[in-house]
Amino acid sequence: MTDTCYDVVGIGNAIVDIIGRCDDAFLEHHGTPKSHMRLVEAATIETLYGTMGPGIEVSGGSAANTMVGIASLGGSAAFIGKIADDEFGRIFAHDIRAANVAFKTAAAAGKGPTSRSLILVTPDGERTMNTFLGISTNLDQGEVDPALIESSAIVYLEGYLFDQPEAKAAFRQAASVAAKAGRKVALTLSDGFCVDRHRVEFLELIRSNVDILFANESEITALYETSNFDEAARRAASDSKLAVLTRSAHGSLILSGEEKISIPVVPVENVVDLTGAGDLYAAGFLFGLTQGLSLENAGKLGSLAASEIISHVGARPQKPLDTLARANGLLS
Amino acid sequence: MTDTCYDVVGIGNAIVDIIGRCDDAFLEHHGTPKSHMRLVEAATIETLYGTMGPGIEVSGGSAANTMVGIASLGGSAAFIGKIADDEFGRIFAHDIRAANVAFKTAAAAGKGPTSRSLILVTPDGERTMNTFLGISTNLDQGEVDPALIESSAIVYLEGYLFDQPEAKAAFRQAASVAAKAGRKVALTLSDGFCVDRHRVEFLELIRSNVDILFANESEITALYETSNFDEAARRAASDSKLAVLTRSAHGSLILSGEEKISIPVVPVENVVDLTGAGDLYAAGFLFGLTQGLSLENAGKLGSLAASEIISHVGARPQKPLDTLARANGLLS
Repeated sequence: MTDTCYDVVGIGNAIVDIIGRCDDAFLEHHGTPKSHMRLVEAATIETLYGTMGPGIEVSGGSAANTMVGIASLGGSAAFIGKIADDEFGRIFAHDIRAANVAFKTAAAAGKGPTSRSLILVTPDGERTMNTFLGISTNLDQGEVDPALIESSAIVYLEGYLFDQPEAKAAFRQAASVAAKAGRKVALTLSDGFCVDRHRVEFLELIRSNVDILFANESEITALYETSNFDEAARRAASDSKLAVLTRSAHGSLILSGEEKISIPVVPVENVVDLTGAGDLYAAGFLFGLTQGLSLENAGKLGSLAASEIISHVGARPQKPLDTLARANGLLS
Repeated sequence: MTDTCYDVVGIGNAIVDIIGRCDDAFLEHHGTPKSHMRLVEAATIETLYGTMGPGIEVSGGSAANTMVGIASLGGSAAFIGKIADDEFGRIFAHDIRAANVAFKTAAAAGKGPTSRSLILVTPDGERTMNTFLGISTNLDQGEVDPALIESSAIVYLEGYLFDQPEAKAAFRQAASVAAKAGRKVALTLSDGFCVDRHRVEFLELIRSNVDILFANESEITALYETSNFDEAARRAASDSKLAVLTRSAHGSLILSGEEKISIPVVPVENVVDLTGAGDLYAAGFLFGLTQGLSLENAGKLGSLAASEIISHVGARPQKPLDTLARANGLLS
């Protein structure tokens, strides 16, 4: 592999999260599947926003959160995602750049607002997301700079992008450019319902062009249409070169060929908001790989980064993760 | 006093806070006086925002925070303040209404954006504010509904409004309507620099038309141009019917005629962000008065509400304050 400018480049939806609290009855009343992400129209998000409690606005987006995590760990990261020329677009751009992530995608005028996700956090810390994609659906192949992909050791792709035809094409293009340049391609399945919508294409991509697969329990069982996690894990190990399966409080499992490594969670005194747990796990794991850590230590770094994010509201780190990693002996 | 619809109506700037972290060197470099509020132009706020770290957006505004605190304590509150028809205006309106505060001021189109304050929090928890007033400067007498003032037991006025001539006129009008209707008028001095700008007018208002005066140490010493707090307190007691002086970690002092009551702070394990401490103290104190609490217990309720707000980022309560007050035996 030749020299690269970035450890990881992420491609995903550029989203500002509006985070509020609610109880389970609220979710049920609004037909919002708990712990999942659902795509909603402008009218639905208006209704939900009008009935939910006070919110806090924090930049988010799955792959974007992961890139910010990598930068906070001391890595070099870039992000590609579409924002509009509006207030939320300015918030997103400011926050990701202020976190030292390279972000050069131009703001697009007049094609709908910047994406937003109403995230409802229940007293158990679970997050339920209602995402209005807005301008994100306009991400197209023109936005994916081949030179940026070629100069990044890993390209990290967010499964959510599959919900938009143009973005899916951009996504495939990035994977193909990365493969040709000898770079690694990482994919996160994003959400169980998202997997249901795109199962066949995800499987095809995983078997042909993905080096590192991230999924949680509901996503991997959705992919293989089984309720048996062990069965899903066995099939993931056979279909992918390296599969990283996160299981919330049950830790994570790293599968590489015959190798099978269990990583425990890092205990958190007070779980406030699970938003971003998977995103930050991916940040720690990917950065660990770029630093030559063993799979086990990369997994531990993922668990550590996830433990910081679930101890407060929002999916962007509030403490420098490099300091945390050094204090825990995972980075020197 | 006849029946009222609201315990308290607040008049102030309708602001969305953009909260980030920085060190003391950053404040010094940008010539931003620590722990104070300064008014800045659009260009200055752009420069500051461009250089500060990632932020979190949370609704704010001093009197608005106080009204939300009163509602959270179980009181009925209303707010008057000017927003623009933009994203931040929608955030402000949503959050205050979702907190059960009546807010009916119409959004104004095309007169500048909704007010915003860049709040920089240093590691010691102190907050330094850079406020761009935008549309707030357009609050005028037409916005102050006399019927609303007359139907509220207390009208609470934010000193910051004195920075705008039209708002100052609206402010005086509200105080006069309240006095005629036999309602109480409460005033917070807001900030030491704000007092420097409007000392003579503040003194005149306090002596003629204020029933309850709130000030912190820097504000009350600025008002009386003395570095001696005891001297300032003595003069405040003589100039006002009821003066409530907050002194950060040193607790607060309630002065009513010859009476002088010291209230200790409620200890907080981890002070995260002092933004809103004074606003929430005022919420607890004012709500306590409307519930017939003694001055001492009203002060204790103020201290308790302040202790919740400084334990997290942002000046809006994250826990229901009525539950907290009942758990501490201050409300039944």
